[in-house]
Amino acid sequence: MRALISVSDKDGVVEFAKELEKLGWEILSTGGTYKLLVQNGVKAVEVSEYTKSPEMFEGRVKTLHPKIHGGILHKRDDENHKKQAMEFGIGGIDLVCVNLYPFKATIARTDDFNEIIDNIDIGGPAMVRSAAKNFKDVLIVTDILDYDEILDRLKNKTDDIEFRRNLMIKAYEHTAAYDSMIANYMNKRFNGGFGAKKFIVGSKVFDTRYGENPHQKGALYEFENYFTNNFKALKGEASFNNMTDIYGAVSLASSFGELPAIAICKHANPCGFAIKGNLLESYVEALKCDPISAFGGVIAINGTLDKELALKLHEKGTFMEVIIAANVTDEALEVFADKKRTKIFTQENKFLARSDEDYNFKFIDGGFVYQERDFVDDSEILDAKCVTKKQSSKDELNDMLMAWKIAALTKSNCVVYVKNSAMVAIGMGMTSRVDAARAAVNKANDMGLDLNGCTLASEAFFPFRDSVEIAAKVGVKNIVQPGGSIRDEDVIKAADENDIAMYFTGIRHFLH
Amino acid sequence: MRALISVSDKDGVVEFAKELEKLGWEILSTGGTYKLLVQNGVKAVEVSEYTKSPEMFEGRVKTLHPKIHGGILHKRDDENHKKQAMEFGIGGIDLVCVNLYPFKATIARTDDFNEIIDNIDIGGPAMVRSAAKNFKDVLIVTDILDYDEILDRLKNKTDDIEFRRNLMIKAYEHTAAYDSMIANYMNKRFNGGFGAKKFIVGSKVFDTRYGENPHQKGALYEFENYFTNNFKALKGEASFNNMTDIYGAVSLASSFGELPAIAICKHANPCGFAIKGNLLESYVEALKCDPISAFGGVIAINGTLDKELALKLHEKGTFMEVIIAANVTDEALEVFADKKRTKIFTQENKFLARSDEDYNFKFIDGGFVYQERDFVDDSEILDAKCVTKKQSSKDELNDMLMAWKIAALTKSNCVVYVKNSAMVAIGMGMTSRVDAARAAVNKANDMGLDLNGCTLASEAFFPFRDSVEIAAKVGVKNIVQPGGSIRDEDVIKAADENDIAMYFTGIRHFLH
Repeated sequence: MRALISVSDKDGVVEFAKELEKLGWEILSTGGTYKLLVQNGVKAVEVSEYTKSPEMFEGRVKTLHPKIHGGILHKRDDENHKKQAMEFGIGGIDLVCVNLYPFKATIARTDDFNEIIDNIDIGGPAMVRSAAKNFKDVLIVTDILDYDEILDRLKNKTDDIEFRRNLMIKAYEHTAAYDSMIANYMNKRFNGGFGAKKFIVGSKVFDTRYGENPHQKGALYEFENYFTNNFKALKGEASFNNMTDIYGAVSLASSFGELPAIAICKHANPCGFAIKGNLLESYVEALKCDPISAFGGVIAINGTLDKELALKLHEKGTFMEVIIAANVTDEALEVFADKKRTKIFTQENKFLARSDEDYNFKFIDGGFVYQERDFVDDSEILDAKCVTKKQSSKDELNDMLMAWKIAALTKSNCVVYVKNSAMVAIGMGMTSRVDAARAAVNKANDMGLDLNGCTLASEAFFPFRDSVEIAAKVGVKNIVQPGGSIRDEDVIKAADENDIAMYFTGIRHFLH
Repeated sequence: MRALISVSDKDGVVEFAKELEKLGWEILSTGGTYKLLVQNGVKAVEVSEYTKSPEMFEGRVKTLHPKIHGGILHKRDDENHKKQAMEFGIGGIDLVCVNLYPFKATIARTDDFNEIIDNIDIGGPAMVRSAAKNFKDVLIVTDILDYDEILDRLKNKTDDIEFRRNLMIKAYEHTAAYDSMIANYMNKRFNGGFGAKKFIVGSKVFDTRYGENPHQKGALYEFENYFTNNFKALKGEASFNNMTDIYGAVSLASSFGELPAIAICKHANPCGFAIKGNLLESYVEALKCDPISAFGGVIAINGTLDKELALKLHEKGTFMEVIIAANVTDEALEVFADKKRTKIFTQENKFLARSDEDYNFKFIDGGFVYQERDFVDDSEILDAKCVTKKQSSKDELNDMLMAWKIAALTKSNCVVYVKNSAMVAIGMGMTSRVDAARAAVNKANDMGLDLNGCTLASEAFFPFRDSVEIAAKVGVKNIVQPGGSIRDEDVIKAADENDIAMYFTGIRHFLH
């Protein structure tokens, strides 16, 4: 039996080769891998020695040779293939161990285009694909984590077809991911991110118990180990809907730097938000906005969930299905030991953070829409233009920033009411902005919340004066919205008439 | 100059080769392409003849040869490379024309796993990738639509680096898409669709003017030419949000087979829906539900937009920004000639249809969730269990089916009220179900719609009896919901007390 080993990630490869040798395998190798193996006492043979073909063009052509690919590709159970192999002196290569230098690492290291091109592997993917095609006869090893199992199975002769097939699937995933990364990089570099083809490649983190609903299967996929590195389950398993809710809640709670923000979400929309002196106070205020919706919701904590906050969350009458905190103390975790249905997750960090993707996307029948992501920035309020006679105070502008950010991260149409650094009402996800405003006000009334003196944000412009009038009735004193309606003048007039300060940001934040 | 031509799609390849010959190029080729070229008088040389290496193993190893890959890969401006090429008798290959037999076509043709494996191309992708890497010196041609431009540029010596680079990007897109398809297929066949890696590959249909908001760039990508084949712009250009709205509206309007359904949507949620005797009547009824939200909305027409319907849509006081119809007559199109802002699209079919993807996905920070798609079926109502003393009549069950389907296709939480085959109220996208119910009722009151005798659907169970009580107050006579709350008994009691017929489907349809 003969193995060809040529790896970029050299972890464990010496041991792997040594074990193969012990099992009687002959080892072929190239370049750096060859040197490492020989230095460590493996009797490897250089590929160029084996093919009797010199390595040419600085190694650009080493393994692209009939003796290598014929050795991999011929069918061992085909008499003609066997005869031809014999005739042309082509020995079988029965295991190919190749992993590619991650293209991601290349582009992270350098911007030099020639160097990037030089780093595109040609021989490696060709061998991986050859061996994967002939997986019945050839073990294709692309994952260093598989070395042990392969050795075990070789020893026990349990390298059955199913196992080999799984290696084959992994191999094509490896080459597909490699070329996807190259194509995406080139399109980003030369076509502004919107190339002729777009490859969205995810690695499975876990299967969810089901999808959006129990009759749908689902799973979570990650980019670049994001969840592996930034998401840890301390209690319970995240469902499909938990993950999208957590996305919404963390987006919001992480939008105010190191401030002690608490966001409570349901169906990925906020139903509670506050930033007070500390997380405990923030939670108490956040819950007031809509404790009914909050029941069974998702809470994002921009800081450490400690015992005190945990005890508050644990109080009778409230129930958060999901808690996501930057950090969780052991004592806090213990508090929930008796709460079977509460799930607790952490980013294991000081504060909550978001991922750094530049683009997002949305499935639609027959394809997807793809776009630059939307982020909302403090400067939008700092630079907002006051269009009314009245101006907002410093504290009111603080509420305005909060209301604006919440509005930007809530499903359209939405209106958000903030008072003293806490959300006091919200309407969202509706086809009409004025209906959203009205629903919010009704809810606040039910909750016994006083909207008088509050600040209202709308993520898109008010088309008519009616929303301003509803706002005035409940005591809204400040409004922020993008502006841009053909009836802006009338809307501004309505604000002036009601002694409301209104600011235009010039920026819309539709979210669907 | 020397070209290697080996293509699966042979359209135009003879002419291309002939033109290259005229320009003084030597042609290498293999297999079926070689035969075709020679039959048509091209003086092509077989690759095995050129390499002096026999074709082995039924063609599995033809081009995987140093003389081929060295010919492609050596740098023409590197003295050492040139010297080595001379020394080893390796002539330059300056153009590689290869396109791969689409793996998609293989799996469409056969389920035979051996045949599928046999169809995985090894030599082709290796040449494409080699040539793409050395794009400065080698033209890599993977798209038959590029033949003419390549010939033009060769004639005019304008095959500059930018052009070559674009061909390179296309080449890696080609190999990435090929292996992505293989990996996805294998995972679907052997891992139930949820493999270790998931490749979502889209082809750009068009750049949108912007993304969800004006400060975001965006584009539409399609699977398998879906939009190219099923979506035609008759007037205006679809925006990013138009595409997601159309998705929502068509999903709904196409859910009732050949019935004359009209769906009006805003922010991808319905604000009008009806199925009456014909499309015109359906439109009139659909608009009544919420003409305010409908203004500037998207209308999906499950049939032909003719002149009569167009004139009705064109009436003063209403304005649909987007019209998507199964078909549009020329006369109907003319009606909108004066409406600058109205966009009109068609599927060019008798009725609206959806795509046939089995899965969908949703971006979240750091990755995406992936799931089997949710579809709602007539059988869910046919098999629904009556849990109250009162049962619904046949007509009421008809309304129930409509309400249920609309609820399944509306953002959660939602409640839908249907009466006489028309939606009369809807609440959606809110964090609380009872608030959604209340908002819907308020709206219906504003619109002067009488909900008495109507049918209510909720896409998820009622957690408390309060929603039933609100429903009873406005005259709801039939309710459909999944059931499954721990307080179902109480909810059923509330229905019985109010003489309401209630059905449980046992199936939830959350949508986010």
